[in-house]
Amino acid sequence: MKTNPNDIRSLNSRASRRGFLKRGMLAGGSLLFLAGGGGRGAEPVPAGGAEGSSEPANETLKTIHRLHSTHGNFLDRPLPDETLQAILRASVRAAGASNNQSYSIIVVKNRPMMKDLCGYQGGCLLLFCADYNRMKASAAALGYDYQPGTIVDFVNATINTLLVAQTAVIAARALGVDSLLTNGVHRGDMERHWKLLDLPATHCFPLLALVLGYADREPAFRTGRLDGLGVVHDGKYHRLTKEETEEIIRHYDDKERHLGLNTDWDAQGYQHYLDWYFKAWVGRNLKPGTTETQMLRLLKRSGFIEAGA
Amino acid sequence: MKTNPNDIRSLNSRASRRGFLKRGMLAGGSLLFLAGGGGRGAEPVPAGGAEGSSEPANETLKTIHRLHSTHGNFLDRPLPDETLQAILRASVRAAGASNNQSYSIIVVKNRPMMKDLCGYQGGCLLLFCADYNRMKASAAALGYDYQPGTIVDFVNATINTLLVAQTAVIAARALGVDSLLTNGVHRGDMERHWKLLDLPATHCFPLLALVLGYADREPAFRTGRLDGLGVVHDGKYHRLTKEETEEIIRHYDDKERHLGLNTDWDAQGYQHYLDWYFKAWVGRNLKPGTTETQMLRLLKRSGFIEAGA
Repeated sequence: MKTNPNDIRSLNSRASRRGFLKRGMLAGGSLLFLAGGGGRGAEPVPAGGAEGSSEPANETLKTIHRLHSTHGNFLDRPLPDETLQAILRASVRAAGASNNQSYSIIVVKNRPMMKDLCGYQGGCLLLFCADYNRMKASAAALGYDYQPGTIVDFVNATINTLLVAQTAVIAARALGVDSLLTNGVHRGDMERHWKLLDLPATHCFPLLALVLGYADREPAFRTGRLDGLGVVHDGKYHRLTKEETEEIIRHYDDKERHLGLNTDWDAQGYQHYLDWYFKAWVGRNLKPGTTETQMLRLLKRSGFIEAGA
Repeated sequence: MKTNPNDIRSLNSRASRRGFLKRGMLAGGSLLFLAGGGGRGAEPVPAGGAEGSSEPANETLKTIHRLHSTHGNFLDRPLPDETLQAILRASVRAAGASNNQSYSIIVVKNRPMMKDLCGYQGGCLLLFCADYNRMKASAAALGYDYQPGTIVDFVNATINTLLVAQTAVIAARALGVDSLLTNGVHRGDMERHWKLLDLPATHCFPLLALVLGYADREPAFRTGRLDGLGVVHDGKYHRLTKEETEEIIRHYDDKERHLGLNTDWDAQGYQHYLDWYFKAWVGRNLKPGTTETQMLRLLKRSGFIEAGA
């Protein structure tokens, strides 16, 4: 398969997600992570605190507003090692519970391996895993039996891991490195990760892949975001009224906002973008006739769900 | 209770985590999230790509290396609204699967409420929840029955949510706003969140609180990080040797690295910092005599774990 079925442009011409997923699975496919800045979905941000200009004066805010995902169009160009090291050293500065760093970052430079892991390849891939094995080894060396075996341990490690992953994305953008976050690592047969990377059998779980590299071109547009009602709640949770829900549906229909994954949903016969989304795109995580997802089964096997489950 | 039992300095003089947790629970206590830059644990970072100076020349990398957590010493000073809005608008620029924004951010400005939620109070609190209810309402309005009811949906939403949370932390730092990330929201009776904030009964789960504000002083030091063996793996997973594990144990013992939560573990009679960590600090998430954590029970009730569990 020469073309990448996960590329956003090739998606635009497809009515059915099921066909996409089938093809994507064969290539170790992934759900897309979109990031962007600009467009009507991203409103102008007040500068460095209070100046109110349309573009933030602050360099870091500018970096954040320039975030965007690169889909399938990375050049075959490796990342300079000092750039990779700068990204890694910045990433671990993220906060973490008890400073236990319950994660591992696996650096993959082999391009076919990248594709096997998540369906994409770029200059380098970072696989972020929730992982207690360093702490377990330290505990064992000191004579303690440390078994972080509940979903609370999994969620704590997941939090620690993802804060690091996003810090890597922002550090990369700051250094002119393009990126793609993908949960493609959860598609297809996940056991491949344990085999390909020799992951520990327990208390280690692959959460997210970050492909780093250099895109062959600037994105044509950046995706928008909802940032008002339904996303940000003032003081307590606000339940959307019928009118507010309809307004959100209209926001997705407004192609200038770039909130959607395609722009030809109407040409495909759908009345609203979200008709396309719920009818053609949203898949079932639970396969018909089964009662458990692969992820739950593997989390149990990994010792990350207590016996009560 | 006037002093905050979760303050890092008050922890330093305590031998037992159990006593701490007991007190912390009474105050809606939390596990600490430490963030920092500098110290021997944070090695010099090559500048803007390749210059190799000891401090990154890049403004965004500087911001990241300046990250640190504020514990209990926020001034009673609200955040200017334009600063809060800039942080929120930057935060949602994080990438997300299918751009579905399966999260809610609840902005809490009421100080006693902040304390109730996570044990801390500052200028403002953002509660980050995995949340599909906006999408569910949109689906219902269009006549679709959308039920994101598996752990895969939970993990996807968790990823989306935490990427946003860390982007908020970095945006805040860039604007001179101090912060504390805390999973204190998972301590004590979690049902309080549903009551206090009127959260939807299903498909919404509080993941992490971010207290924003202004600290009364600069931190005395910044915590260190491991960023080599055991954290970063080259090509595939590297299992630590006995010697490498012992080296890591020594790293934690080296007080100049600031990897630990205290510096008086030796005065307390422990041979190594990690002896203190595993013996006095690490608690049990599963209460004796039970088979299920509160979190697993509430995730099931929230419809986030498939029936197979």
